[in-house]
Amino acid sequence: MPGERVAYLGDTARCPYGGRSDEAIRLFARQDADFLMKRDIKMLVVACNTVSSVGLDALRTSADDIPVIGVVVPGAKAAVLRTAEKKVGVIGTRATVRADSYTKAIHDLDQSVIVYGQACSLFVPIVEEGLADHDVARVAAQHYLQRLVHLGIDCLILGCTHYPLMMEVIQETVSTRIQLIDSALWTAKEAQDILAAMNLLSPHKAGGLETSTFFVTDLTPTFRETASAFLGTSLPNAEKVSLDELAPDDSKKSTFQ
Amino acid sequence: MPGERVAYLGDTARCPYGGRSDEAIRLFARQDADFLMKRDIKMLVVACNTVSSVGLDALRTSADDIPVIGVVVPGAKAAVLRTAEKKVGVIGTRATVRADSYTKAIHDLDQSVIVYGQACSLFVPIVEEGLADHDVARVAAQHYLQRLVHLGIDCLILGCTHYPLMMEVIQETVSTRIQLIDSALWTAKEAQDILAAMNLLSPHKAGGLETSTFFVTDLTPTFRETASAFLGTSLPNAEKVSLDELAPDDSKKSTFQ
Repeated sequence: MPGERVAYLGDTARCPYGGRSDEAIRLFARQDADFLMKRDIKMLVVACNTVSSVGLDALRTSADDIPVIGVVVPGAKAAVLRTAEKKVGVIGTRATVRADSYTKAIHDLDQSVIVYGQACSLFVPIVEEGLADHDVARVAAQHYLQRLVHLGIDCLILGCTHYPLMMEVIQETVSTRIQLIDSALWTAKEAQDILAAMNLLSPHKAGGLETSTFFVTDLTPTFRETASAFLGTSLPNAEKVSLDELAPDDSKKSTFQ
Repeated sequence: MPGERVAYLGDTARCPYGGRSDEAIRLFARQDADFLMKRDIKMLVVACNTVSSVGLDALRTSADDIPVIGVVVPGAKAAVLRTAEKKVGVIGTRATVRADSYTKAIHDLDQSVIVYGQACSLFVPIVEEGLADHDVARVAAQHYLQRLVHLGIDCLILGCTHYPLMMEVIQETVSTRIQLIDSALWTAKEAQDILAAMNLLSPHKAGGLETSTFFVTDLTPTFRETASAFLGTSLPNAEKVSLDELAPDDSKKSTFQ
């Protein structure tokens, strides 16, 4: 959908969320969503596995009438389609694995699939450090993934935004016998299907990225570098938004005691 | 000082600070300090190398009349006393190394000492993951420390709270020829010296830990485990404090745009 304009918010002042409590994740997610809702968006994509796993229901309740999609259900659908052995592995943050969100989404589609979860807390910092192809990544991948390989999975869901950037090392660790599933690709497809069904797709064929806006809560020294690694191109523009604007008093007081 | 009562605040909802901008670090540090100042404390210890490096001056300005000490100056003093070759290495977060705080503190004492800095961003997540003695730690230590060894340092300052928990792997990587300096120990000694000089030492010989209070901004699932690794004993009590209480509107609005 290269013609779609995106309003993106990265909470760089408080990330990563994956090791925090459900309560903190839900508070931050609500504040993030409220900020984007004010930007006249037609759809909210929760492009974070941790928030999709822990806070999606709460966001839907407050989203008025626009569709809200997470990354878990699209990834789960893909895994159910692909697994022949009916044994699927899921790697993600501690919060994602604790919520068991992929297991629930997969069992909604097929109760007979067995799902094994594994938190891989070091993968995010390794990617952010630019070491996705370093021996540190290889040793960490061995540490986290060996158990899943021995359990006989034939599909592995990369249940965190950062993990596709470590795809080569992960594939090499689990062998090519195991298919890797990138939730992000399936989420983009789901977003397109829903927008098409609602007749809301942009009529433009290109130009979306240039006219998109990227908001961050902290202009960290490495933000542009990390963003380029994800986008495959440099970021057109990034704007700092203060935490005050993100968390006005009324939204905070009602949710976090 | 086993008789001293401590009011400790861990900003577990927004840590780690080490990769954030100076602006965000100063804002968070100011909010953290304001919270503790209200607890009738006689001294503020900034037990974080990142904040000590980036935000200490700002905290001193607002600290009224109690002493505020960081961990950088005590660590720097120890290194100047110990280095024979006059070549010191400093490892820390990105923000600590960027601020060059140890170099400045060392040169205040001895201009002839050469200081080399190296950010080791993966050490904190490795320790938090409980892998301080794992091959992941060894490979990461090799990656970060080889350059410092080749530069001929004879002292290495562990310029981050978490690094002493990786001391064995760090020592093994740099060889026993290089002395490791734990800023925390020297900071505790400095705190004792200042309290003694001000005649403010507690008259009690024991019982401080049991009557101390540990505040956190998020009761993360791993908090107690990590705290025990640092304390060597389980945490007597921990209390959740909301970010609202930490960041009242007036303190926020004046500092972060």
